[in-house]
Amino acid sequence: MEEVDHLAHERIKAQFDVDAMKVVWAGSKHALDVADRMARLVASDPVFRKDNRPMLARKELFKNTLKKAAHAWKRINELRLTEEEASTLRVLVDEPSYVDLHWGMFVPAIKGQGTDKQQKKWLPLAYKMQIIGCYAQTELGHGSNVQGLETTATFDPKTDEFIIHSPTLTSSKWWPGGLGKVSTHAVVYAHLITEGKDHGVHGFIVQLRSLDNHSPLPGITIGDIGTKFGNGAYNTMDNGVLRFDHVRIPRSQMLMRVSQVTREGKFIVSDVPRQLVYGTMVYVRQTIVSDASRALSRAVCIAVRYSAVRRQFGSQDGGPETQVIDYKTQQSRLFPLLASAYAFRFVGEWLKWLYADVTQRLQANDFSTLPEAHACTAGLKSLTTSATADGIEECRKLCGGHGYLCSSGLPELFAVYVPTCTYEGDNVVLLLQVARFLMKTVSQLGSGKQPVGTTAYMGRAHHLMQYKCDVRGAEDWLKPSVILQAFEARAVRLAVNCAQNISKAPSPEEGFSELSADLVEAAVAHCQLIVVSKFIKKVQQDIPGLGVKEQLQILCNIYALSVLHKHLGEFLATGCITPRQGSLANDQLRYLYSQIRPNAVALVDAFNYTDHYLGSVLGRYDGNVYPKLEEEAWKDPLNDSVVPDGYHEYIQPVLKQKFRLSRL
Amino acid sequence: MEEVDHLAHERIKAQFDVDAMKVVWAGSKHALDVADRMARLVASDPVFRKDNRPMLARKELFKNTLKKAAHAWKRINELRLTEEEASTLRVLVDEPSYVDLHWGMFVPAIKGQGTDKQQKKWLPLAYKMQIIGCYAQTELGHGSNVQGLETTATFDPKTDEFIIHSPTLTSSKWWPGGLGKVSTHAVVYAHLITEGKDHGVHGFIVQLRSLDNHSPLPGITIGDIGTKFGNGAYNTMDNGVLRFDHVRIPRSQMLMRVSQVTREGKFIVSDVPRQLVYGTMVYVRQTIVSDASRALSRAVCIAVRYSAVRRQFGSQDGGPETQVIDYKTQQSRLFPLLASAYAFRFVGEWLKWLYADVTQRLQANDFSTLPEAHACTAGLKSLTTSATADGIEECRKLCGGHGYLCSSGLPELFAVYVPTCTYEGDNVVLLLQVARFLMKTVSQLGSGKQPVGTTAYMGRAHHLMQYKCDVRGAEDWLKPSVILQAFEARAVRLAVNCAQNISKAPSPEEGFSELSADLVEAAVAHCQLIVVSKFIKKVQQDIPGLGVKEQLQILCNIYALSVLHKHLGEFLATGCITPRQGSLANDQLRYLYSQIRPNAVALVDAFNYTDHYLGSVLGRYDGNVYPKLEEEAWKDPLNDSVVPDGYHEYIQPVLKQKFRLSRL
Repeated sequence: MEEVDHLAHERIKAQFDVDAMKVVWAGSKHALDVADRMARLVASDPVFRKDNRPMLARKELFKNTLKKAAHAWKRINELRLTEEEASTLRVLVDEPSYVDLHWGMFVPAIKGQGTDKQQKKWLPLAYKMQIIGCYAQTELGHGSNVQGLETTATFDPKTDEFIIHSPTLTSSKWWPGGLGKVSTHAVVYAHLITEGKDHGVHGFIVQLRSLDNHSPLPGITIGDIGTKFGNGAYNTMDNGVLRFDHVRIPRSQMLMRVSQVTREGKFIVSDVPRQLVYGTMVYVRQTIVSDASRALSRAVCIAVRYSAVRRQFGSQDGGPETQVIDYKTQQSRLFPLLASAYAFRFVGEWLKWLYADVTQRLQANDFSTLPEAHACTAGLKSLTTSATADGIEECRKLCGGHGYLCSSGLPELFAVYVPTCTYEGDNVVLLLQVARFLMKTVSQLGSGKQPVGTTAYMGRAHHLMQYKCDVRGAEDWLKPSVILQAFEARAVRLAVNCAQNISKAPSPEEGFSELSADLVEAAVAHCQLIVVSKFIKKVQQDIPGLGVKEQLQILCNIYALSVLHKHLGEFLATGCITPRQGSLANDQLRYLYSQIRPNAVALVDAFNYTDHYLGSVLGRYDGNVYPKLEEEAWKDPLNDSVVPDGYHEYIQPVLKQKFRLSRL
Repeated sequence: MEEVDHLAHERIKAQFDVDAMKVVWAGSKHALDVADRMARLVASDPVFRKDNRPMLARKELFKNTLKKAAHAWKRINELRLTEEEASTLRVLVDEPSYVDLHWGMFVPAIKGQGTDKQQKKWLPLAYKMQIIGCYAQTELGHGSNVQGLETTATFDPKTDEFIIHSPTLTSSKWWPGGLGKVSTHAVVYAHLITEGKDHGVHGFIVQLRSLDNHSPLPGITIGDIGTKFGNGAYNTMDNGVLRFDHVRIPRSQMLMRVSQVTREGKFIVSDVPRQLVYGTMVYVRQTIVSDASRALSRAVCIAVRYSAVRRQFGSQDGGPETQVIDYKTQQSRLFPLLASAYAFRFVGEWLKWLYADVTQRLQANDFSTLPEAHACTAGLKSLTTSATADGIEECRKLCGGHGYLCSSGLPELFAVYVPTCTYEGDNVVLLLQVARFLMKTVSQLGSGKQPVGTTAYMGRAHHLMQYKCDVRGAEDWLKPSVILQAFEARAVRLAVNCAQNISKAPSPEEGFSELSADLVEAAVAHCQLIVVSKFIKKVQQDIPGLGVKEQLQILCNIYALSVLHKHLGEFLATGCITPRQGSLANDQLRYLYSQIRPNAVALVDAFNYTDHYLGSVLGRYDGNVYPKLEEEAWKDPLNDSVVPDGYHEYIQPVLKQKFRLSRL
């Protein structure tokens, strides 16, 4: 079989060491090595095939996922994989399943909220998957507002048990992944009621299904909540609905690290600081930001490669048409996304550091940085996931009509990604949390309390309110200090404007609510500044490899200046820059596009994704797109027969005029 | 059965006559009546059921579509429906099928490009559906660039036939709807070659399948191109792939209205003006703009109703939580989309007039307005379809987690809608056409040639370049003249800026290409001005019905000011308004949201969509969302059994530790 690299002419153009960039992207030589080995393992195993996913009906699709999950677990055991290897392998299997919730939510909930004794009892069972758990928080009528949950856990001192109950239709647990068909256990969130008093929402370990025959236990009704966006996508997951009819569990199954109920039914708050919960949130959101860069980079990889393969218009004297990646309209949509993928990768890396820092401080009983860390991760979760969801769809459109085919991989990537904008904190609700923190920070500026971490720049508010950008030529926009100050000035001015307008309202709460759309914009500006500043910091480090640092510098500038162009109104309205300076930034941006152009394909090669993982005919490494598109097409079940099922009943009668004539 | 209207408290708030608004939305009392009757007909017929669509595998789904198409045709005949009624019924069946291409592309192609004789032969067959046709233009390697098609039609004078041939893999016809499994005929676009010379791309009527047994004719290979975005969506359509191996057709099957090939093989251009083709384009794009307002209004209807049903946070003293439609963040995302739905409805109505006007002029051999009409429809197609695709997804997000369920109707609405951004002219390619026309208009300004139609304002370029907005208070932004002039000034200045920058380039073509991203922005500004100005014109008409005009005025202002806010950077950078004036516009916008709020539910009721047509549990007219969500969930095939298929093979072995222990 002839193997031709249709993108060889692109790869030869690269002005940097792709292997060195792979290490930068992966985070370390070790991480690259693990990812590489696991990716090959998955790609070479036929059980992990996924190209047939969009053609399967729900039941087959789900059964196939169960098969993959079991097979992955088998391989993890057989090969005695480390925890790092195992979790990498699960990511690369690339199919949402109950396993994600078991490892990603059930185990961490017990770790974070269980006492040592509870951990000792439950974690070994979970680690061996002798029990499979999920995380049952949201309800049919209740999402973002956790305190609004209706499920109750009422202590019965007579039997030393909690009675878990769903008092209304809207109190049905709804959405938990892994719940619908698989989980044997769940951490259930419910209002704790003891001695006639409601003590707020707490977590309880509840067994749902028999370990013998998998039937739901008495008093428990469970089902799947039905199909979701996309052909394959999250339809591989058994998101579930769950109703409790006075289900009794031992008192010992309340997660009691932070608060306890005694044998007598007394509610006690332990001396373990509640802030610990925020530590877990920082961890989960850091993972989400990492996943954002992963999802966006996949879409960008597909769109960049196919834009280099695809030609349209501009044929000179019968020669080949122009590669679409050479069109400025294509570049101005595609390259900012390429830059965003890198930007999110590095801010995710920084969040890992932040999580370690927060954990260390918590262990030393230092809670001072926690509110800032919490706001920062909330904001970055929101910013990166929204940009990624939009970015994937933009990449799909950048692939023209063929991006609409499932074989492009992009429809499924979009459908499987978008819920990230809603779960673990709705993106708008999170931005309002950030805004609330910013307003608090502004209000304390006069008090001498210095803002910390990502809000430190607000300590220079006075200076930044006066600041005038001194850009006089397009190349001035390449200076990190110029970019940083413009972003800082914009963020601080938007925040201060909001604070001033709120102060004119009858009450702060009314003002906050009335101005919430503006507050969201201020929060976004703050978060974009964080991403820009962390990218700049990254680029200022020593980075080995020929030309690697130079490419990252260009990407960093593209990210910053494309954000500036998109939000030009805010930079101008706050007087941070002049229209002329905005126009120079745009000139510089165009020039940066032409600089990154020859390196584009190599920059997506650096993600080191296998064709299996990409799951896209358009994004194939070898660029051999068109023959493979046809190959995929012929696999469709509709092509099983030349004359389609239904011809005799529904086509022939039309053609043969079996119906009376109309007035048409 | 108890029937409660959970949204009655909303409907009672409306400050206008909903029935009168229904007439405005429909366009006339007659149109409303037809739509209403057809909608009931479809909704009451169990064959047209569509709630099970996302659960069907491809083959069943497709067969079910064939059934609906045949049934619709049967009903159209039985009830002797008029053409208007029949086409309305087809729209309301709401399922893409071969029928769309037959009536929407095949018939119009013959009408537009066939000679009288050809029309007399083929149209009666098509009208009776004795033949079923599709439109085979795009190829695997060729989309936007029609002249780049590779299929050839070579005249053979010996037999008086054309030989249709696919010389390469990339020349396979690819995408045509109805081609894959159903069509008996196609209008095929191919390079006409006669006397050894290529005369460009022309249309040919080619029979594809036997009318006896539906088998592809000799030399013809056809298949379906595989699954596409979404569960149901366009998977009901047999988009196809088609290869010709020297297929012969009679010379008489070349569509010869505009040019002919004689018996001897001479290529002749008739005196019928080629511009006629543009007339058809204006027609097709006007339809697309109408469809945009329809799709967007559906999504908005769902999101508005569910936002009024859904409550989250803000419970006071144990009372109910706040309706999410009362949050300013929700309003600032939702109400501009509500306003856009109305804006696109009215610009679509105006395009209908434009098409009639163009047709009349063409018949009088007046081609003077054609380039402007062509640019204008191209731009509006692009603007409205992009905004609608994004708007549907935004509505989905505005419904929180439940918007991700297929039972919300929004995933399928999005998936079925997005290809509109690509087909009938890629949206970016179209904007570049608009930009080219704008640059031409600017360059002719000095020549005394007065711009016409939607570019007439450019005749006042000199004045508009000097213009300074005189807004001093938020209420000044309610004046139509203020809004219009700001939009005109912005559009003209962006266009003139581009023209000036292009003139600095080594050549106009290089300049145009280098600045194409800016040109796209200028084109968008021009198109937004058109939408705003047509909305203003509509509102200035006499509109009967209590409070109807007032509501439309508010919507018009919301549309204009939300566009201004979103593109603030351009208004400021071009000096059309000051930062202070931008801020006043934003204040006014917030106030307008509070004015429209009590009318929101009634304004979507005015679309007069049945629950069947909406196909959304969240958008139900009666607001009875939660019990129905559960009902839908239980219908999922996964809920056929309590213990899922695959338990014994893939879950039990995990739980029972059938794999060796890992290092974990």
